[in-house]
Amino acid sequence: MEHTRIKELLNASEFGQEVVVKGWVKTFRNNQFIAINDGSSIHNIQAVVDFENTDDSLLKRVTTGAAVRVKGQLIESLGKGQRVEVKVTELSILGDSDPEKFPLQPKKHSLEFLREIAHLRFRTNVFNAVFKVRNALSFAVHQFFNERDFVYMHTPIITGSDAEGAGEMFRVTTLDLNNIPRNEAGEIDYKEDFFGKSTNLTVSGQLEGELAAMALGNIYTFGPTFRAENSNTTRHLAEFWMIEPEMAFYELEDNMDLAESLLKYVIKYALENCQDEIEFLNNRLLEEEKNKPAAERSELNLIDKLNFCLSSDFERVTYTEAIEILKRSKPNQKKQFKYLIDEWGADLQSEHERFLVEKHFKKPVILVDYPAEIKSFYMKQNDVDEHGRKTVRAMDILFPGIGEMVGGSQREENLEKLLNRMQEVGVPQEELDWFLDTRRFGTAPHSGFGVGFERLVLFVTGMTNIRDVIPFPRTPNNAEF
Amino acid sequence: MEHTRIKELLNASEFGQEVVVKGWVKTFRNNQFIAINDGSSIHNIQAVVDFENTDDSLLKRVTTGAAVRVKGQLIESLGKGQRVEVKVTELSILGDSDPEKFPLQPKKHSLEFLREIAHLRFRTNVFNAVFKVRNALSFAVHQFFNERDFVYMHTPIITGSDAEGAGEMFRVTTLDLNNIPRNEAGEIDYKEDFFGKSTNLTVSGQLEGELAAMALGNIYTFGPTFRAENSNTTRHLAEFWMIEPEMAFYELEDNMDLAESLLKYVIKYALENCQDEIEFLNNRLLEEEKNKPAAERSELNLIDKLNFCLSSDFERVTYTEAIEILKRSKPNQKKQFKYLIDEWGADLQSEHERFLVEKHFKKPVILVDYPAEIKSFYMKQNDVDEHGRKTVRAMDILFPGIGEMVGGSQREENLEKLLNRMQEVGVPQEELDWFLDTRRFGTAPHSGFGVGFERLVLFVTGMTNIRDVIPFPRTPNNAEF
Repeated sequence: MEHTRIKELLNASEFGQEVVVKGWVKTFRNNQFIAINDGSSIHNIQAVVDFENTDDSLLKRVTTGAAVRVKGQLIESLGKGQRVEVKVTELSILGDSDPEKFPLQPKKHSLEFLREIAHLRFRTNVFNAVFKVRNALSFAVHQFFNERDFVYMHTPIITGSDAEGAGEMFRVTTLDLNNIPRNEAGEIDYKEDFFGKSTNLTVSGQLEGELAAMALGNIYTFGPTFRAENSNTTRHLAEFWMIEPEMAFYELEDNMDLAESLLKYVIKYALENCQDEIEFLNNRLLEEEKNKPAAERSELNLIDKLNFCLSSDFERVTYTEAIEILKRSKPNQKKQFKYLIDEWGADLQSEHERFLVEKHFKKPVILVDYPAEIKSFYMKQNDVDEHGRKTVRAMDILFPGIGEMVGGSQREENLEKLLNRMQEVGVPQEELDWFLDTRRFGTAPHSGFGVGFERLVLFVTGMTNIRDVIPFPRTPNNAEF
Repeated sequence: MEHTRIKELLNASEFGQEVVVKGWVKTFRNNQFIAINDGSSIHNIQAVVDFENTDDSLLKRVTTGAAVRVKGQLIESLGKGQRVEVKVTELSILGDSDPEKFPLQPKKHSLEFLREIAHLRFRTNVFNAVFKVRNALSFAVHQFFNERDFVYMHTPIITGSDAEGAGEMFRVTTLDLNNIPRNEAGEIDYKEDFFGKSTNLTVSGQLEGELAAMALGNIYTFGPTFRAENSNTTRHLAEFWMIEPEMAFYELEDNMDLAESLLKYVIKYALENCQDEIEFLNNRLLEEEKNKPAAERSELNLIDKLNFCLSSDFERVTYTEAIEILKRSKPNQKKQFKYLIDEWGADLQSEHERFLVEKHFKKPVILVDYPAEIKSFYMKQNDVDEHGRKTVRAMDILFPGIGEMVGGSQREENLEKLLNRMQEVGVPQEELDWFLDTRRFGTAPHSGFGVGFERLVLFVTGMTNIRDVIPFPRTPNNAEF
């Protein structure tokens, strides 16, 4: 007899039928009530054992973490806290769990502890909820683009180019580190390496994405990207997933519209498809907040915050306007910012972004037209303004509690301007000659952006450490499991 | 005025409205007819220019590969080969394309040549079709699992474990190869490396997938995997994408059912959603076959072959039965096989797999219960048979023209048996202790499999070289773009 998943049983409207349940024991109370979870729901099903007619030796093996199979009748529950339960006629143990050794006890564990046993934390309610939400957001991303006829491109992970300059890179090699081959000049001979040259892990699929967009029109990537930066923060990972759409014939305004639609679409999808999980995470946060002083508590709970994002138009502001707002702001005047804003050209820090979003506009903000100096070489150059300032058609989308969720721009489609800028910032033309071909043969206005997927998951789950929203986080000195 | 994508215009049922089209010139005939493509369809739209009232200098810039914008009236076409066309009132060049330099001329290019300009091949019909089909198959994979409540898991790309033994690995490092740090014993000091230990690119997400399945129930991965093998064949890549579902409480039969459903679902999705593209690829193959001697031509065309797969039950055969069939087969008797099959235990080569699928059963075949010796340590051990033979609950799905499309198994859930097997084949227990925890705490029967995504795309597109179905192929001595 096949088993039925618990999610289905919990939603059953007919009672009386015989069912088989397989799952893991969460708790066992009074030698009678087994709470079983099979991962399909964050809710357990209660199995009621006829303990007087069950072997004691069998009952003793019903411990937290053990895998069990129960067969019985699905009935309406008379107890509190559940609508249905299984009146057990057959109980068997599929796999034991020694209660002395199983690290997950039926109590609250700290997230830090769970991070150390990342291979088992999937069995907790909080990580069940987090990874269900992550799954829903992933699917929503694909569905959003599919509905709009975008082509999903798998851009390469291993790259021979290190010119994008988005960050420090990891080397990929098959050279024997104990016996590095050298050429006649005594330099490392990468001709002996697997790809016949020096290769790294990608920091972005954008450049390859542009190639595809300048042929297929609208494309997106959704894949892993890497930074070999020694940042031990709650917002950085060495390996993380990015979504990077790239659209031919899009100007910056179209780009902003698309990014805002995408974010709203996926948040709405998660709210509609992960009600149980988001409600659980919402309650979890409310509990956490109780321990904080009143002043530090959030004004909105998680669900309200998500709904608020859906109903707000994101505020579109130029960098120059933002600098004026920040200059005049109380924390700047009172020197409460760590980095004071005193002139145009300053790079915005997290504290400034958060002030704009959380205090000033109180909603997601799209900042545009950044100084060219602090942005990448491939961004479209605006005309120099009346003060002689050079800006580019960049856009960053800032979210409450997160900071930068999206970074994007219209791309510089003019070959000459692009070459000049590359020379100014020292990007060697030879390395990107293939990329420049898009500007040589039928160039056209085009735009794109990148979404840090884990930051999106952070926002929707209300988690605060990015290591808690990816299954197996990779950070400096940590590549466990 | 916003532009409309060509796919939409080609499907328009109303005529007379003013439209704007942006795209790239494919051909320009008689100084009058521009075939424009914007990537949204493999079909072009014809724009008819009033050349007598258009500047000659402008018309000269309408060259293959140039990006243009045309505005005009959408009308029913009187010419052959198209239903609609645009009667142009405004023409402008967005980006020129020097016809002397643009590598893609309006003629047939070889796939080998296009591989060398992989950054431009997206603009050809054949690669437009291939990458649209690839996109449809990707989406279908996600939709299939989403409909069945599977959780999409992003298993790690960088891994500290090299114990899976699926193949040669790429090293990931931030050590300075010119100055490798060494410890007191003179060995390479990986404590100085980014992750504080030796790390590689993953060869499979399976082990991490098992951890998640033994908590969340049903999960799947879909991500890049790597092999540092020096194979220059039409079937191997150093970087490729794999789909790896893993299901708690599934036995081998359930595993086979799921794999067969998945393959049929995604092939059906592609047939329904990429009709134009698959028809184009079908015709392309028919053209190619004309150049072959009659004996080498396929019995079925591409579309028939795909439909045939959908309507057939995959043949389920044990390895032992397959060996008997192969032993008695004509090519074995006549010594036409390169590797003759003379006894039980032989590893099957591509020639044997193809014989079984293409000649004997003439449909996809699922081979099960392979000798333990030629399969991985983690596969569930069958009872030793009456001849003393050890087999495992493995399954390989073999496809016509492709060979192995899927490899999977029920997993060995018994800790003791698993440990014994690891010791036999020399997999160190310490390295996989985290993995073994699934067998220590609530172990249960579970199964999974891996689908090589590029092989699936090969099958559905009818392409023959795996480098032609991934945007930027990575192979020995090749990591361009």
